[in-house]
Amino acid sequence: MTDVTELTVGVFGGTGPQGRGLALRWARAGIEVVLGSRSAERGEATAAEVREQAGVERCRGLENAAAAAAADVVLVAVPWEGHAALLESVRDQLVGKIVIDCVNPLGFDKQGPYALPVEEGSAAQQAEKLLPESRVTAAFHHVSAVHLTDLSMTSMGTDVLVLGDDREATDVVRALADAIPGMRGVYGGRLRNAHQVEAFTANLIAINRRYKAHAGIRVTDV
Amino acid sequence: MTDVTELTVGVFGGTGPQGRGLALRWARAGIEVVLGSRSAERGEATAAEVREQAGVERCRGLENAAAAAAADVVLVAVPWEGHAALLESVRDQLVGKIVIDCVNPLGFDKQGPYALPVEEGSAAQQAEKLLPESRVTAAFHHVSAVHLTDLSMTSMGTDVLVLGDDREATDVVRALADAIPGMRGVYGGRLRNAHQVEAFTANLIAINRRYKAHAGIRVTDV
Repeated sequence: MTDVTELTVGVFGGTGPQGRGLALRWARAGIEVVLGSRSAERGEATAAEVREQAGVERCRGLENAAAAAAADVVLVAVPWEGHAALLESVRDQLVGKIVIDCVNPLGFDKQGPYALPVEEGSAAQQAEKLLPESRVTAAFHHVSAVHLTDLSMTSMGTDVLVLGDDREATDVVRALADAIPGMRGVYGGRLRNAHQVEAFTANLIAINRRYKAHAGIRVTDV
Repeated sequence: MTDVTELTVGVFGGTGPQGRGLALRWARAGIEVVLGSRSAERGEATAAEVREQAGVERCRGLENAAAAAAADVVLVAVPWEGHAALLESVRDQLVGKIVIDCVNPLGFDKQGPYALPVEEGSAAQQAEKLLPESRVTAAFHHVSAVHLTDLSMTSMGTDVLVLGDDREATDVVRALADAIPGMRGVYGGRLRNAHQVEAFTANLIAINRRYKAHAGIRVTDV
């Protein structure tokens, strides 16, 4: 099993709830986290909050390209609107590195959430196209940001589907899920099957509204 | 809560593993099941097996149109290739009735399973278009046929996502899931979000291959 505590994990979109929540959990698990932001100051301000809340000393905020350069593995948790532009801006720094895409291209209207069509098939496949020299995976789409950021919740009680065509890369990402208490990384198929995993977040949002919950999923019989 | 034991459930594709498995479980739960088939003889042969295995007297096999006419609620579990033609052939008999679509439009190649594009968005939306006077829902996509047909498995241990825009209809379908021991019906969103639920079956097949499992899902925090 990969010792993920030796990795430096870069988080793009670390100032948003999903990125911040995972950064917090990883920092608390003893993993070095670098938050990437368009503004180094804003990244560092969030990093200071993460250090404080997680009770750790190691968490930096950097401008996106510097964060990409400093990281071994990066999580992409930016809004869908900024996805392509961000990835293009850090392509060189991500050569050879594992990229974890957790972006959900969703729209909202009066009837609630729905999946947006994506020309490449999915956000993860768009990442694969824009970062041909990186090892692109998709994961962490269904984890509640509310639960992640609430450290009084000592066990997440949820599985993380990890998709990708590079077995070693998906094993590392599964280990990054396993590093968070009560979370389990489960291989979830090839990257070409990422669309439905991203889109399923619309269903979870509908479930949350109906049941007033912060729903996630568990894979049974595994 | 709907008393589903008063319903007659028609199953199209009852000679296939998923339809036969659900027919078996419903029959065992005391629900009257009518199996639809292109051939009344083949339907009746499967019905005889279901009666025998479930230890019940009430389960008939009929030609599709007759099964549709006899049923209050129907499950559509036919191969995707025959989906549109079947629905068109029973449109009149299904007016005003609840239709549960559980068809997964999937393709397979050397890299395994993948979701097929569907012009209407999903099999369920195709059903909605072909059956404008029926109450179309989507459910039971992720239930293992192997587990369903193995009655030594006394608890299914899995959730069933039920999608649809008609609240009363989805409540009846949820109750039909709840009628099977260890199974729970969970509202899963509007019908326009059915594509990813159908397509997710490709991921479950990939999971089954990797982990040598019969995977399903549980929704957490609900």
